[in-house]
Amino acid sequence: MKTETTLQGLHAALGAARAARKSIGFVPTMGNLHDGHLRLVQEARNRCDIVVVSIFVNPTQFGQGEDFEHYPRTLEADSKLLFDADCDILFAPSVQQMYGDGAQQTTVQVDSIAADLCGRSRAGHFTGVATVVTKLFNIVQPNVAFFGEKDYQQLAVIRHLTRDLCFPIDIIGVPTVRAVDGLALSSRNGYLSVEQRDAATTIYQTLQTVATQLKQGALDYAALCAQAAAQLTGAGFMVDYVEIRTPLLGLPDAQSTEWVILIAAKLGKTRLIDNLSVSLD
Amino acid sequence: MKTETTLQGLHAALGAARAARKSIGFVPTMGNLHDGHLRLVQEARNRCDIVVVSIFVNPTQFGQGEDFEHYPRTLEADSKLLFDADCDILFAPSVQQMYGDGAQQTTVQVDSIAADLCGRSRAGHFTGVATVVTKLFNIVQPNVAFFGEKDYQQLAVIRHLTRDLCFPIDIIGVPTVRAVDGLALSSRNGYLSVEQRDAATTIYQTLQTVATQLKQGALDYAALCAQAAAQLTGAGFMVDYVEIRTPLLGLPDAQSTEWVILIAAKLGKTRLIDNLSVSLD
Repeated sequence: MKTETTLQGLHAALGAARAARKSIGFVPTMGNLHDGHLRLVQEARNRCDIVVVSIFVNPTQFGQGEDFEHYPRTLEADSKLLFDADCDILFAPSVQQMYGDGAQQTTVQVDSIAADLCGRSRAGHFTGVATVVTKLFNIVQPNVAFFGEKDYQQLAVIRHLTRDLCFPIDIIGVPTVRAVDGLALSSRNGYLSVEQRDAATTIYQTLQTVATQLKQGALDYAALCAQAAAQLTGAGFMVDYVEIRTPLLGLPDAQSTEWVILIAAKLGKTRLIDNLSVSLD
Repeated sequence: MKTETTLQGLHAALGAARAARKSIGFVPTMGNLHDGHLRLVQEARNRCDIVVVSIFVNPTQFGQGEDFEHYPRTLEADSKLLFDADCDILFAPSVQQMYGDGAQQTTVQVDSIAADLCGRSRAGHFTGVATVVTKLFNIVQPNVAFFGEKDYQQLAVIRHLTRDLCFPIDIIGVPTVRAVDGLALSSRNGYLSVEQRDAATTIYQTLQTVATQLKQGALDYAALCAQAAAQLTGAGFMVDYVEIRTPLLGLPDAQSTEWVILIAAKLGKTRLIDNLSVSLD
């Protein structure tokens, strides 16, 4: 495995692969890798000739008062995990490499889909994500890129921008990896105290409760969400939202047979998100 | 010369060139080609192995009440000119090919530089330009792209977005081609009546007057611009702006030794722009 920290180094490392028309699979991450990330790498390994993983904690997708400064940076451990996962190239640029010295004036904005759900409480978050993903796509120029389904709305935003901006890249969503008790793996789980970690399992339990009710034919989506929010509040969460949507994040109606249940809630200062897809078939 | 009208067709046509690591030069146009465009094609021909010219009248860069509907579309004549200019691939997609059937949610925004000058009177224009250029860059994936210096601010916006979004593309500005009497070639010149066409030469005369005064040491930029605007108004123009800027479009000061003079003005319904770079050296 090669580690590259500059755009020039990465271009040089990929030049021969590109000329040989090898397929390039790309997994963008913010590091602090867990089994969820490694599942993405495995998927890329299975499908592509060359696997590139980026580790970059992107400042522009964190809002005021969010955890940019304290976000866990564990490059050495990550590097070992990626070597073991048979990654070909680790791209770990500095903020200076990614954003340069001059003032950046360009942003990529994905409108309605990014203003919804997490976008309501995290102003500018998805513009930061869309802009850095566009930059990374232009730097790596992959054939296929892999994103976790845990960040369901992020995946939807990236599918939109990829299609809207005509990137010749296949976007693959990879299922969420969960702890034995159901908690979705996330770097932010590391912020939780022992008690909070116990309480955190309520998110997945709540998702399952709502899923069961939907499968049993419950149609009062607002009531289901209110019950779920109460369950989370009872476990000590500050609920940001509980929503039942169609797979494309529209509003479901009485004829819907496929849904995604989405939750965002805080335990103390730690904001957790999760989702579960449900289908009648 | 091949003509391609679909993204798939273009990808197929360029695949072999890319695998052979041939350099791809790209000239994006809105068609109705004149010698200014052909100068861009010639420059691409001189520098690159493969020359791709796009012809696409992009609806999203025209504002309400602007000339999208009446913009001249002359594909057959353009195609002959490009064949004679030794272009390899003409890419002439439909609006449907470029924007698809679903709702587009993604825009590329270049902030301060696009809010200035033409951006003040053409709301959304540079967002339309930046977004379609991003799409075309992703579709063609050129090594070098060529833009006319006549659209000075557009060139600055594109240089910014290319750097900010990390496109691995060299941007080349190509000097303006002028008629014998100095009028910058533009597809919109075709809208002018015989009398308007005569009056239109005042733009270049005014640019030269201001350039002479700058070279002679005039420092009251506001007074120079006001005089120039009066000269244009006297010739029948409705002046949008006359501005003296630094080459990077900042405000010049008493120490400046390089400037660009920029004019936008209307004759009847036809909006014309031009600029002239001036250096003391």
